[in-house]
Amino acid sequence: MNTIQPFVTLVGAGPGDPDLITLKGIKAIESADVILYDALVNESLLSYAKAGCTKIYVGKRAEQLSTSQDYINRLMVDYALTHGHVVRLKGGDPFVFGRGGEELDYVHGFGIATAVVPGVSSAIGLTGLQKIPLTYRGISESFWVITGSKSDGSLSLDLTHAVDTDATVVVLMGYAKLQQIVALYKSRQKADLPIAVIQNGSLPNERIALGTIDSIIAAVEKSNIGAPAILIIGEVVRKHEAFNDLLKEIQYLER
Amino acid sequence: MNTIQPFVTLVGAGPGDPDLITLKGIKAIESADVILYDALVNESLLSYAKAGCTKIYVGKRAEQLSTSQDYINRLMVDYALTHGHVVRLKGGDPFVFGRGGEELDYVHGFGIATAVVPGVSSAIGLTGLQKIPLTYRGISESFWVITGSKSDGSLSLDLTHAVDTDATVVVLMGYAKLQQIVALYKSRQKADLPIAVIQNGSLPNERIALGTIDSIIAAVEKSNIGAPAILIIGEVVRKHEAFNDLLKEIQYLER
Repeated sequence: MNTIQPFVTLVGAGPGDPDLITLKGIKAIESADVILYDALVNESLLSYAKAGCTKIYVGKRAEQLSTSQDYINRLMVDYALTHGHVVRLKGGDPFVFGRGGEELDYVHGFGIATAVVPGVSSAIGLTGLQKIPLTYRGISESFWVITGSKSDGSLSLDLTHAVDTDATVVVLMGYAKLQQIVALYKSRQKADLPIAVIQNGSLPNERIALGTIDSIIAAVEKSNIGAPAILIIGEVVRKHEAFNDLLKEIQYLER
Repeated sequence: MNTIQPFVTLVGAGPGDPDLITLKGIKAIESADVILYDALVNESLLSYAKAGCTKIYVGKRAEQLSTSQDYINRLMVDYALTHGHVVRLKGGDPFVFGRGGEELDYVHGFGIATAVVPGVSSAIGLTGLQKIPLTYRGISESFWVITGSKSDGSLSLDLTHAVDTDATVVVLMGYAKLQQIVALYKSRQKADLPIAVIQNGSLPNERIALGTIDSIIAAVEKSNIGAPAILIIGEVVRKHEAFNDLLKEIQYLER
């Protein structure tokens, strides 16, 4: 008779492209007895699982977050105790607004051992693929990653601080707050600051809108961009290859 | 006669553990005609290169950064024009204080096409492996990644802003500035704020020191920690599994 060794590994699946998972992440999937995976995880990653691995979709929409987290927590523990190695496969990195910390706390409460396999966060990966450098000597010596989706629906207080700094600001799950964020930056006389909006980053249907605080709403509408999307705000956005062409176009239209 | 197709790919190798590179990064290495790799890159990754690939170490120490960047830039262009696909393999992520943006600008100046393969940044990866969540509902809804190593030797102005916010602060290349940073936080009445210092993260010789702003210098000395190291400052550090034991130890000593 085999003895079950309960174990839970949180694995970051990366921002969408299945080739942006780490080797360590693949090895965790290969050894999993059960995989609990999120909506933003590329399902082709499940093909690394061994025969007989139980794969359960626990995707949830933002508005149902609070009700379903308990359910996911209980699934992790139940399956670890009955099946052994549970891989909790999460989009991006488990600790970047992924509730990974809460999941570990819950699992540790049952005395179950855990490990974490970091992933490429959308904040770093999607900007990188678009060749927008988060830091650049003489332009930005830091970047600040902020959630656009607070549980109570309000804008993060951190954003009201970030607007007054030179940090590159990345807002994850930020699409729904774009109007509010634009208003905030305008109220601080930052209407000319460059901003990019990336939807479905790293996937074949990736879309990007580029502009300034003043012009981005129109650019997003023109490109038909929606959620899920990330926002990048700061002078480094000027480094995007299409940004200068965009400026020339605007200058032409304004003549 | 083959025609050379000059192309440069910046690839993030991850924080040290060779299993923390992405599949996409490995595929780039496999197709490289030339690899230019940094000091912080795990050399075992070079084994993915095809036979006949030219591998050149361009590691540099921080103090020589300004003199050798030109040399690396020229190597990238020369090899792309004469050999084809150059992979510039960098520790962590190419755009997180990696001068990736400057390298792209230089290469684009010669009309050479480029791509970027993001990597797991130390900021996110090393905290994740230590199970320190960068964000946690009710504790921290953002994280701010700041360089500890400015070219002029001064402390980043962003740090003096960050100390007054609730953001989790991650300082990369921060070991040499630890004393200054501790003094800064003390001057703002934050002596009790938790802080972690991680050296050689993700490698077999990884070391961590945990404490508060008040106690961290002694903890670092006791653990014999040095560079390269990252600092993590914020209430989320309390979530590290050893933190509570540490607090008990301190309370015991203070009785």
